[in-house]
Amino acid sequence: MLGKVLRGTDIENSEAAATLEALATPALLLDRDRLDRNLDRLSSRMAARGVVLRPHMKTGKSIDVARRVYQSVPGPITVSTLAEAEYFAQHGFRDITYAVGLAPHTADRAMRLLQAGVDLKVLLDSPEQGVMLGAAGRAAGVRPSAFIEIDCDGHRGGLTATDPKLITVAAALAEAGVELAGILTHAGESYGLSAPEALVAAAENEKTVAVAAAAALRAAGHECPVVSVGSTPTAHFAEDLAGVTEMRAGVYMFFDLVMHGVGVCTTDDIAISVLATVIGTKPEKGWILVDAGWMALSRDRGTAAQRVDQGYGLVCDLSGEVYRDLIVVQASQEHGILAMRSGSTQALPHLPIGAKVRILPNHACATAAQHELYNVVSSDSAAIEARWPRMRGW
Amino acid sequence: MLGKVLRGTDIENSEAAATLEALATPALLLDRDRLDRNLDRLSSRMAARGVVLRPHMKTGKSIDVARRVYQSVPGPITVSTLAEAEYFAQHGFRDITYAVGLAPHTADRAMRLLQAGVDLKVLLDSPEQGVMLGAAGRAAGVRPSAFIEIDCDGHRGGLTATDPKLITVAAALAEAGVELAGILTHAGESYGLSAPEALVAAAENEKTVAVAAAAALRAAGHECPVVSVGSTPTAHFAEDLAGVTEMRAGVYMFFDLVMHGVGVCTTDDIAISVLATVIGTKPEKGWILVDAGWMALSRDRGTAAQRVDQGYGLVCDLSGEVYRDLIVVQASQEHGILAMRSGSTQALPHLPIGAKVRILPNHACATAAQHELYNVVSSDSAAIEARWPRMRGW
Repeated sequence: MLGKVLRGTDIENSEAAATLEALATPALLLDRDRLDRNLDRLSSRMAARGVVLRPHMKTGKSIDVARRVYQSVPGPITVSTLAEAEYFAQHGFRDITYAVGLAPHTADRAMRLLQAGVDLKVLLDSPEQGVMLGAAGRAAGVRPSAFIEIDCDGHRGGLTATDPKLITVAAALAEAGVELAGILTHAGESYGLSAPEALVAAAENEKTVAVAAAAALRAAGHECPVVSVGSTPTAHFAEDLAGVTEMRAGVYMFFDLVMHGVGVCTTDDIAISVLATVIGTKPEKGWILVDAGWMALSRDRGTAAQRVDQGYGLVCDLSGEVYRDLIVVQASQEHGILAMRSGSTQALPHLPIGAKVRILPNHACATAAQHELYNVVSSDSAAIEARWPRMRGW
Repeated sequence: MLGKVLRGTDIENSEAAATLEALATPALLLDRDRLDRNLDRLSSRMAARGVVLRPHMKTGKSIDVARRVYQSVPGPITVSTLAEAEYFAQHGFRDITYAVGLAPHTADRAMRLLQAGVDLKVLLDSPEQGVMLGAAGRAAGVRPSAFIEIDCDGHRGGLTATDPKLITVAAALAEAGVELAGILTHAGESYGLSAPEALVAAAENEKTVAVAAAAALRAAGHECPVVSVGSTPTAHFAEDLAGVTEMRAGVYMFFDLVMHGVGVCTTDDIAISVLATVIGTKPEKGWILVDAGWMALSRDRGTAAQRVDQGYGLVCDLSGEVYRDLIVVQASQEHGILAMRSGSTQALPHLPIGAKVRILPNHACATAAQHELYNVVSSDSAAIEARWPRMRGW
């Protein structure tokens, strides 16, 4: 089973290998050196704090990316769909948290993974879901395990740490024969921050709420083994994680312009980019047209609300060097318009038809999802070293 | 070859057939009755004006959708990628316009389709592209054919009708051994309009500029057989198309909330929707959480700039009836938050965990692109009548 995890789909030295110059565009590039650097950074940080890192595979959606995270033995992971859970289970992963609220059809489907020997934990925040999960477990002849979702910042779902319903849900799980895995929270509001002190405070709040929720459950007689927190910003800004047992994060593997705007990374840390070709110029408007529109870049405009709006992406040369202030100002389905950022004093670079550029994405999860595969490169070479397929769907 | 076009991938009466209630979510639905009605509407409109309709396949990206457009013989189509051109050619289509500006790698690849007997026309607006295309044609032993792109409203690429470069490009094509197919323009700015008189004026302008460009070429001694215009709004608002030979449009097949905001369709005309399941509720915030986030809906916020902002989509019940004022107010990767539109006097409908809804998309092209296939339904039944795969990539 592990052999499957370790068998890469690298195409080094194969006929399909190519160079950046020869690659048809638009195409998604993944810089393996930057990926490895980003992985090391967070895993070292968590190891130093004695907290388990449970990477979120929703960003990469690729067994080959997962193999960079776990180079020998498959470890704990988080997923956003049951299709991801099934995909990673097929590749040998056994410790999986499905971090999206349970529905009747996902409860039944999740039980099939338990029957196959996967330690899949699900997420819920209501007694009804507990009853539903218990029934699904009994029908499948397995004992389900669930996290109760905690709301630490009003971002999305979950119960507050002081909500009496927390104890009601735990009791419903016990009654329904469902194991309480622990509590899980996500500081989603941290994506809207940028001041370091605010990020430290968001991480502190995420931890405090999580630990308080676990304490409330334990005080009511429920075991709460796992205290799971996480978001890429808080994972990098948390100073003290006492009481937390695991950290979840996903976009940290690739980083992106939104994370740059939050202050978690530099543009030089961003591991993915979209390779595009110039297909037209409009000198009178200061425009360069490329063949990467929103189909290749995604419609994500996550930097629009940040201090520096990066349009649909920041443009680099073929080596990955940023053209200062050159951004994708407009995108239609298969066209991107490059222009200097408003107010820039830089000159528009000369990029004739056929020239190639790399575009750093606003949001790595959204941009990568527009592509079938990663063209893997290293930081100091123009060779495509591997092609790593992505999975998709639900 | 035609047999291939007419052979559907319907799954009627097959084991895979299911009902809306039983379908795993999120899932893309396509209402075949609405699709057929939308197709009839524009084809009748163009037939009445004696203008060829060349549907744009970038929205549907499906041979099964194309088979509803052309129920007997494959006709003229427009595509946005060479992967689409190759896909539709494999399914018997022979008259294809690739309406994105030419690059060196696409020129070579396009020639392979010409070698295979496909009448593929490409798009350009510079002498350099003409020279590049001529060389690709000579290398492949075929005679390429190209449209000159005309800019009718400053939206994107192309030359204005009065730009002397228009004649320079035509001369470069002749010199390079490239056939001048005609001129092609796209009133992309019409997507930003909503007043009927402004839409009529945009259509009139698109036609006037196209006809003037063709006249300028003819006056300089160049044949300009095709005068191609198009956008879904102008296609539906054009009153007089004298001098125009063909109309291109794509999103008219499905329609969407952006087109509703422009005033081209009603919400009842929208043929695609995303089926989603309730996975949580936050009564204290007036929120209902569903399992369709931006991965299922896309990040498109095209209605944000319109008079009525529909968030990430307008919510309907399982039969397709709109819940007045219930929209997707926030989306993360696999979560959507439903809430009443700001200022609404309507009450939040009761939707418990497990309940299903249909979400009308802002932008059909972007939402459909997030999915592998269409679950085909009819307007008056809850049965999934067919599953139509979509193609993707470049």
